[in-house]
Amino acid sequence: MTGAEQLLAALHAAGVDTCFANPGTTELDVVRAFEAVPGLRPVIGLQENVCTGGADGYARMLGRPAATLLHLGPGFANGIANLHNARRAHSPIVNIIGDHTSWHLPFDAPLTSDIESLARPVSGWVHRITSPAETAAVGAEAVRQSHARGGQSATLIFPADHQADPVPVEGAVALPQGAADGLPNDGDDVATALARLSQARRIVFLLGGGDELSGLGARAQCAVARLCQVLPATAYAETFPSRSERGQGLPAYDRLPYFPEPARAVLDPADLVVLVGAPVPITYFGYVGHPSQLVQDDRLLVLSRPGEAVAERLEHLAEILQAPPYAPTVLPLPEAPTGALTPAAVGRVLTAALPEHAIVSVEGGTCGYPFYAVSAAAKVHTTLTNTGGAIGQGLPVAMGAAIACPDRPVLALLSDGSTQYTIQTLWSLAHEKLNVVVLITANHQYAILRNELRRNGAPLSAQAAHLTDLGSPAIDWVGLAQAYGVPASRSTTAEELAAQLAHALDQPGPFLIEMAL
Amino acid sequence: MTGAEQLLAALHAAGVDTCFANPGTTELDVVRAFEAVPGLRPVIGLQENVCTGGADGYARMLGRPAATLLHLGPGFANGIANLHNARRAHSPIVNIIGDHTSWHLPFDAPLTSDIESLARPVSGWVHRITSPAETAAVGAEAVRQSHARGGQSATLIFPADHQADPVPVEGAVALPQGAADGLPNDGDDVATALARLSQARRIVFLLGGGDELSGLGARAQCAVARLCQVLPATAYAETFPSRSERGQGLPAYDRLPYFPEPARAVLDPADLVVLVGAPVPITYFGYVGHPSQLVQDDRLLVLSRPGEAVAERLEHLAEILQAPPYAPTVLPLPEAPTGALTPAAVGRVLTAALPEHAIVSVEGGTCGYPFYAVSAAAKVHTTLTNTGGAIGQGLPVAMGAAIACPDRPVLALLSDGSTQYTIQTLWSLAHEKLNVVVLITANHQYAILRNELRRNGAPLSAQAAHLTDLGSPAIDWVGLAQAYGVPASRSTTAEELAAQLAHALDQPGPFLIEMAL
Repeated sequence: MTGAEQLLAALHAAGVDTCFANPGTTELDVVRAFEAVPGLRPVIGLQENVCTGGADGYARMLGRPAATLLHLGPGFANGIANLHNARRAHSPIVNIIGDHTSWHLPFDAPLTSDIESLARPVSGWVHRITSPAETAAVGAEAVRQSHARGGQSATLIFPADHQADPVPVEGAVALPQGAADGLPNDGDDVATALARLSQARRIVFLLGGGDELSGLGARAQCAVARLCQVLPATAYAETFPSRSERGQGLPAYDRLPYFPEPARAVLDPADLVVLVGAPVPITYFGYVGHPSQLVQDDRLLVLSRPGEAVAERLEHLAEILQAPPYAPTVLPLPEAPTGALTPAAVGRVLTAALPEHAIVSVEGGTCGYPFYAVSAAAKVHTTLTNTGGAIGQGLPVAMGAAIACPDRPVLALLSDGSTQYTIQTLWSLAHEKLNVVVLITANHQYAILRNELRRNGAPLSAQAAHLTDLGSPAIDWVGLAQAYGVPASRSTTAEELAAQLAHALDQPGPFLIEMAL
Repeated sequence: MTGAEQLLAALHAAGVDTCFANPGTTELDVVRAFEAVPGLRPVIGLQENVCTGGADGYARMLGRPAATLLHLGPGFANGIANLHNARRAHSPIVNIIGDHTSWHLPFDAPLTSDIESLARPVSGWVHRITSPAETAAVGAEAVRQSHARGGQSATLIFPADHQADPVPVEGAVALPQGAADGLPNDGDDVATALARLSQARRIVFLLGGGDELSGLGARAQCAVARLCQVLPATAYAETFPSRSERGQGLPAYDRLPYFPEPARAVLDPADLVVLVGAPVPITYFGYVGHPSQLVQDDRLLVLSRPGEAVAERLEHLAEILQAPPYAPTVLPLPEAPTGALTPAAVGRVLTAALPEHAIVSVEGGTCGYPFYAVSAAAKVHTTLTNTGGAIGQGLPVAMGAAIACPDRPVLALLSDGSTQYTIQTLWSLAHEKLNVVVLITANHQYAILRNELRRNGAPLSAQAAHLTDLGSPAIDWVGLAQAYGVPASRSTTAEELAAQLAHALDQPGPFLIEMAL
């Protein structure tokens, strides 16, 4: 048994069944090792950010790590952006980075680089494997570390010789167990929480994303709705939840707005802001005239940290406060729109078409916000958003979610600018025959930047218009998808979109719809 | 004048006229500043590795830095792989990375990350701007630093507030000048060189790439040919030169082979290996049974370091040794191939078609080596290769070379696997209407990995075949190019390729040819 086979076997024994891979020469013994560990499925990506985003989507849906397999420092670097997003999503991931044979490293061959320096900013734990004998221990420890601090990247650097060399029959090396702390248990206790809740005159609950027991799981959302009935309170989702449940039967919470002015309109009037798995609200960027931390500590009550289970605690509070049971409101489906395709029309069409238990990966503001505004009336579904701001995350996350949940339909509601960063994902959708319907908002511009440039009322300068224009030439999204083996169509009206969406959801495998807005 | 305007003006004053840009919200004041510095041309890329590879190609052709403009840590991370290649090419580049407003950084907003840790592995100099007052000094120093150590990345981290804030009328801050060393002047002196050359019985010159005065510039190549006439010597180009001159009128040097066995067949018999701007020959990866350093120090003579001018020194040696003048051999053009498209046929067709002073960016072994085997018979041209092994470099480098040299035809001879990493470059070729002809070797596999997997004679396992297969579905390169606005055609025979290549070279703007091998 080689070191590579032992590592894969150890990861598999610890529950890892999927590896998003873009290997090179220094990972070939890991490639060979898949043969010996048939329960560990390799999923190939044409660029590394596809792989890391895939692992993020997988982890958000299943709460356990997939592995990635990446090629030395430069290959890993290509996947950093989506590991940054995964870090903000608290997604457990085990990265395997091949490196030069250990005795070759001092010679500074062309592909040599400082992998540790690249890995640390996105990894909670980085370990360089120093012999085949430690690979069993390392596999188990990496999975354990990936669950630390609410979920993080555990990154292994695996020199090629330690992959290829045999594991000694006797003398497996134990790894000194590093700290793999859970979350600090410093949420305010129930008595304190009750006291502060009963004294407050205006309360805002901020619900954070995560698994089914998080603030945006179904149970927590319903418990918060009960609390809102007996307290002077309203509730919002955090602006960019890693995962949240939404739709008929659940309360229709808005997300905290992105820009500081409307966010402050929500938060400033509250004398108590209750964090239910949401991070302390910070403006996305620094804006002159607005504080970075929108709510100072004295107005904050922390019921749970991001990644922490909170459903039971909320239900307990609701019982103590004798809140009546949650009674869902049946929301009418929005009227079917007609005519030109507008962001609002896209939101309504998608809301009406969404199958039960669909997963929707949302990236890009143009259609993302209008969809959220009406999607509470859709059948119950799960949304995944861009947590870290590194764009090019929506399509790989949809791919990973589809790998994780093959029985659930997956949709990706994306903007054209951001989707280009990881466009190669389309090939993996076709290669793996995944049930992913991709909706592209094709406005052929970096609209978010134009919005920011115009925030002060200034007109767009010629150079600024040039640098935010994606329209010359306009990318042909239908042709692009078809070139990657993904069937595609173009919608210019709401009726066309509705018909094409029904067709796309009805057929197996991926489909892309270019929405000409 | 804002800090951003001052920085751009200082860069422009120091000779920077091009900025490869993929900005976001934290770079908007740099975007605004382009209006005030019309001599500095922004070139937009849809993904950051397109921008950094473009700056690399630009620097290789002109020997001076372009700027890049990138979005915080995650945006910069997307461009690291091609900065790694640029580092190996000794390309001067000035990276501008926007960051959060300085007072916003402590709040760990979603896009916050450790930019310095990401930047150091690929940057010779990293500087965080701390006030608008220092931007004039910083711009000049960054350009100076980019030329240090034979050429390197100088990376600026530019918080948004220091971009936007006005530069004080008085009180410009000077920057403490850091060391910006040239190359260590430790090449062996002429007397030592002469003594060792005259004692050696079998000499191999290894020529390193770079500008016109480097080992692979025309003058040095001709001087080495003269030396080979009076010494028991042969000469090779380094395996992956950043830039080299080739074609009629120049000596027809082979490249040092990639794999260790044939490389050792060249080097082992020599009792003296003379480095003419080439690095010490190191195997690309560590191979059991082969030393990493293929020539030990006692057999090495260093005439010049990578990036150092060497033409004059070589000519001086040739004069002392009374070598006769260089007399070029006229090489016959290879016979026009017919029938099925093979790598050898591609090499011959391209050699025959190459216009004088063309620039050829080569990435991928399948057609790269066969082209090199015959291209000495082509009209004089410049080749650029992948210096650092991070694939996805060939197309952006071609783009940057075309921006740098608008009057020279540019060709990119690329493999399908590697081109996918930065496929978005196609859009920039169309957007900028660049005269770049892209030739794609479409064999729908990671052929280099299959070659490595089969090196020991082992058959390809099912999983290894799966992980190196790009054929299901086969990417439609013609459709892909057209979707990005690049006209394209497909060749299946040598005659078709010759006709399509003539057509592509004849028309303005980019063109892509899928070569079905």
